Amino acid sequence: MSLTLYALAGADPARPFSPHVWKVAMALAHKGLAAETVAVGFTAIPAIENGATKLVPLLKDGDTLVSDSFAIARYLEETYPDRPSLFGGPGGLATARFVEGFSQTRVHPLLTPILITDIHAMLAPADQAYFRESREKRLGRTLEETAAGAPAAITELRTRLEPLRHTLRHQPFLGGEAPLFADYIVFGAFQWARIVSKTMVLEADDPVTLWFDRCLDLHAALGRSVTAA
Amino acid sequence: MSLTLYALAGADPARPFSPHVWKVAMALAHKGLAAETVAVGFTAIPAIENGATKLVPLLKDGDTLVSDSFAIARYLEETYPDRPSLFGGPGGLATARFVEGFSQTRVHPLLTPILITDIHAMLAPADQAYFRESREKRLGRTLEETAAGAPAAITELRTRLEPLRHTLRHQPFLGGEAPLFADYIVFGAFQWARIVSKTMVLEADDPVTLWFDRCLDLHAALGRSVTAA
Repeated sequence: MSLTLYALAGADPARPFSPHVWKVAMALAHKGLAAETVAVGFTAIPAIENGATKLVPLLKDGDTLVSDSFAIARYLEETYPDRPSLFGGPGGLATARFVEGFSQTRVHPLLTPILITDIHAMLAPADQAYFRESREKRLGRTLEETAAGAPAAITELRTRLEPLRHTLRHQPFLGGEAPLFADYIVFGAFQWARIVSKTMVLEADDPVTLWFDRCLDLHAALGRSVTAA
Repeated sequence: MSLTLYALAGADPARPFSPHVWKVAMALAHKGLAAETVAVGFTAIPAIENGATKLVPLLKDGDTLVSDSFAIARYLEETYPDRPSLFGGPGGLATARFVEGFSQTRVHPLLTPILITDIHAMLAPADQAYFRESREKRLGRTLEETAAGAPAAITELRTRLEPLRHTLRHQPFLGGEAPLFADYIVFGAFQWARIVSKTMVLEADDPVTLWFDRCLDLHAALGRSVTAA
């Protein structure tokens, strides 16, 4: 068994920040699997494994290549069924997709203005040029214009987290008494923010902050292996 | 085995509309359990079962009383484990709480202005007085002032449903290939709207509408046993 995880990196390969890579890193740790991490900048992705993917994370397990964080989690669950479950059964697998939907459609778009100029600042020069051009085209405005929306995004984001707070009134993790991949999905978003930016996205006494701290403590404090910005 | 479900009703007991009661009705059908339904108006709730509850649904199973829709679903899952699962394992149970959080904190508050005057119109006179007084106190404005927010609420609601659409791009139900209690949680909200109001909350071609139609077809089309407003 030889696992390799291709992970997005900025100029400093020791500070991986991609939310999707963090989901996979936590999933691997949850399964007790060690992987060699290969840091790649945005512009190096097309050259990985003979053009196997346009996006990271990409997991290589022996001869098998799997991209997309959710697909990787499913792959790990199916391939290593005797290790701790990432989903807690078929219902947990299905509803984890809803948690992904919440994170990607309701949380990530608000983190974009909050983080975008800090992400740019972390990248290697060649990746900075790619990032600016691709993101400005996608968003229809300059990175700096997007970043001007950060204060409003922070306020709106805190409101949008009510479903998490509701859940955390009943249980310590989205997965119940212990974390599941559903936790790592949302953890990835806040870990992205923690590593990229000094902006306080959440208030210190927010139940979501307390949950995030619990997640940082998991798996020998894997999340804390990269310091906050 | 003798099951009784106390269900909120307006002036016409044949048109139960409570979202929480609908969650339980679907959960009972999912388990293949028949229950006698007892319709009660708001002001009759305190007299049920010697003051057992302030809220419906209340399920009576032999000598056991359980209130709160999620608690009832858990009770049914534990008490009737050999029947089809409502959660698909412990992970599904845990993340169903997140779906509940989404529905109750992000969907219901927007349905309130859309439905509130129609709900009032459906109630028996004594319940109308209670409803107006309690809701106006809770919301800090008249029912009609609350209802003025309906157009903006419809627009915002459609945006907030993105996590559902994301999920439905991958699978036909929140529960995966087949529905689970997670589906019934969100179904309850839209069934409430369907029975109470002629307002088109969703567009006809919205994937959420198509999913809702699939839910209406479940369990011998139980949801269609009450016609749309």
